[in-house]
Amino acid sequence: MTIKKQIREMAKKAREASYKLANLSSRIKDQALLDMAEELTKAAAQLKKANAEDVKLARQKSLSAAMIDRLTLTDQVIQTMAAGLREIAALPDPVGQIVKMWKRPNGLLVGKMRIPLGVIGIIYESRPNVTADAAALCLKAGNAVILRGGSEAINSNLAIADVLQRVIQKHGLPEAAIQVIPIVSRQAIEEMLNLEEFIDLIIPRGGEDLIRFVTAHSKIPVIKHYKGVCHVFVDASADINMAQEICYNAKVQRPGVCNAMETMLVHRAIAPQFLPPMAQKFTQAGVELRGCPETKKILPAIKPADEEDWGKEYLDLILAVRIVDSLDEAIQHIIRYGSAHTEAIVTQDYAHAQRFLQEVPSSTVLVNASTRFSDGFQLGLGAEIGISTTKLHAFGPMGVEELTTTKFIVYGSGQIRQ
Amino acid sequence: MTIKKQIREMAKKAREASYKLANLSSRIKDQALLDMAEELTKAAAQLKKANAEDVKLARQKSLSAAMIDRLTLTDQVIQTMAAGLREIAALPDPVGQIVKMWKRPNGLLVGKMRIPLGVIGIIYESRPNVTADAAALCLKAGNAVILRGGSEAINSNLAIADVLQRVIQKHGLPEAAIQVIPIVSRQAIEEMLNLEEFIDLIIPRGGEDLIRFVTAHSKIPVIKHYKGVCHVFVDASADINMAQEICYNAKVQRPGVCNAMETMLVHRAIAPQFLPPMAQKFTQAGVELRGCPETKKILPAIKPADEEDWGKEYLDLILAVRIVDSLDEAIQHIIRYGSAHTEAIVTQDYAHAQRFLQEVPSSTVLVNASTRFSDGFQLGLGAEIGISTTKLHAFGPMGVEELTTTKFIVYGSGQIRQ
Repeated sequence: MTIKKQIREMAKKAREASYKLANLSSRIKDQALLDMAEELTKAAAQLKKANAEDVKLARQKSLSAAMIDRLTLTDQVIQTMAAGLREIAALPDPVGQIVKMWKRPNGLLVGKMRIPLGVIGIIYESRPNVTADAAALCLKAGNAVILRGGSEAINSNLAIADVLQRVIQKHGLPEAAIQVIPIVSRQAIEEMLNLEEFIDLIIPRGGEDLIRFVTAHSKIPVIKHYKGVCHVFVDASADINMAQEICYNAKVQRPGVCNAMETMLVHRAIAPQFLPPMAQKFTQAGVELRGCPETKKILPAIKPADEEDWGKEYLDLILAVRIVDSLDEAIQHIIRYGSAHTEAIVTQDYAHAQRFLQEVPSSTVLVNASTRFSDGFQLGLGAEIGISTTKLHAFGPMGVEELTTTKFIVYGSGQIRQ
Repeated sequence: MTIKKQIREMAKKAREASYKLANLSSRIKDQALLDMAEELTKAAAQLKKANAEDVKLARQKSLSAAMIDRLTLTDQVIQTMAAGLREIAALPDPVGQIVKMWKRPNGLLVGKMRIPLGVIGIIYESRPNVTADAAALCLKAGNAVILRGGSEAINSNLAIADVLQRVIQKHGLPEAAIQVIPIVSRQAIEEMLNLEEFIDLIIPRGGEDLIRFVTAHSKIPVIKHYKGVCHVFVDASADINMAQEICYNAKVQRPGVCNAMETMLVHRAIAPQFLPPMAQKFTQAGVELRGCPETKKILPAIKPADEEDWGKEYLDLILAVRIVDSLDEAIQHIIRYGSAHTEAIVTQDYAHAQRFLQEVPSSTVLVNASTRFSDGFQLGLGAEIGISTTKLHAFGPMGVEELTTTKFIVYGSGQIRQ
């Protein structure tokens, strides 16, 4: 069978499975999810064995240490994966929820009901635990899923899928509810991206190159996460202690993630008191500061920031610092250089807090809290399939509800149109 | 300036305008909309003059009578256009609405706030009134809009845009809030579809060819309306009178639209009583019936339906009729041949009504009401920018709320992540 035909067959089966999945009871889905957690834990030895092959090949190909780290399945990673599935099982089922309902003058009762999206394609890179997480979230929301992991994790992904498949069959769910594409060639992705009649959504999880490739080739809607260039604006009226704690947390607690702060904007009026002790804390934590000319007047020892530093996603212990004259200038900077991901203001000024929340067009906007809260679990969505930096369908952290859509349901009593 | 550069400039200006539009007060937007209604009415003579050029060219090119009819601006069409703008002004402003809000254990107050999508591109065919309707809906939801109408309506569209532009300037709104692409070449569309950094959504309104072209070429998310193959299922327990009225209304009241019935499914148990009088009513209305072999046993005079009739969008006084043995068979038929647009059941059976609503995966599902209610205005959305037959972002009739997205807003008091 050609790759084209094989992918088409998988997608077609997924579409058929999706009609059955849409009408499963919550109880059946949750039991299967709990059982998957159980079986993954039991299969730890087998999973680690398959993973060892991937790791061996990765070493032969001299992949980076960071990449090998992401690739490696330890007992700890397997436990976390199982715990994640149990948490997803415990979430409320979004399918069938009535989002709102209203009555029309002619007596029609009109409602919007949550239904699954249908078939979701997930294209991801090295981490094999995504296989279980993504499959579980899709199943919870009543969707069939087609997973296409990185070639470097193929043995691990197939081993995980094998465990999930056994549970699916045991519980009588449609076999094509969860499928892993066993083909390493990139052609498999291209074929998948053409099948708009069978697949409703593509979620690429990985670097910017992968996402741009998927966007350029897909006829199917794509939800994208390009990058997180997050800003914290320390306003003139900020509580200096609070501002220090928030900025430190936003930069240092986990610098390699998308919701870490990359640029700190400081109001001119507070800069002389705020910056020197803040810089000291950052320097002690190993953070390299790069400042605008005004910042350099207060902190002469730091590197100068050049135009390229604004809007840069370092994902590292580096921070760009800029002094601004006003809230407006801070918002303008964020619009010009930001990535519409996450921004925070630290302020004691009520009107500034409200204006920042209203006017900053990013997916998560916070007052007096760390940017690190921009995360599905932290915001209370329960679990996260990803973060969207584009506005259609979902903007910001996406939970299980974002894997559904709504249809109109109408209760009539014989109404016709005049 | 090359076409590429010109379109890019327009899109960039639209993006800049969108930041201002997002923060306009409802009052200013509504005043501008009311004034547009006023000015369009006053400019009737000028609009009809521009339109006459388009109609003349259309006649020279021997376009069909139906197309020329859609193209023609009469006083009546201009009045309807103005009335539409007044209705849009009267709708509640979706921007800034808090969809929901909740408190986290750490005290963070998290909300989802409606914000505009940003910049919307609308690509449409002959009807010039779309220029005003679409521009008004986008403005109401705080979006900048780039309109690209059919080449055959270019003079009419530019004349309408000219009126809208004058009002925009008079009210101090950003000039690039509403722009009409003055270029007839298809290259203009292709350039537009590449500009994902400036445009957030493309809505094509027109035939299937246009929509497929846009989907294949766009890097920007597209909301699609392919077709409406709507079904009515007359269940065994249906009230025969009600079923006749609903089916007649769904087929005959306006056969050329996407929410008209194209296939009627009839339960075997009710077919002998229901079909003969129904067929008589249809025949009197000039409807051509095409039946399955079982239907032909009851109505021997009608044409046979062949496989191609199932799933066919006639948009005409033609109806396919099929007898089914059960609710399940009806749902299976709809899934197999339908277009996920609109389906209705006529029944007195409570459980069947509930199952049909739950299990039919179409964007609008009705019990005991005509499919013709699948329309933004009829369902109570106030006005309609289009109907989506794909599931992402919006599914079914789209009102002004569907031209927005949501962002997370977070009220904190110094929270940091542990």
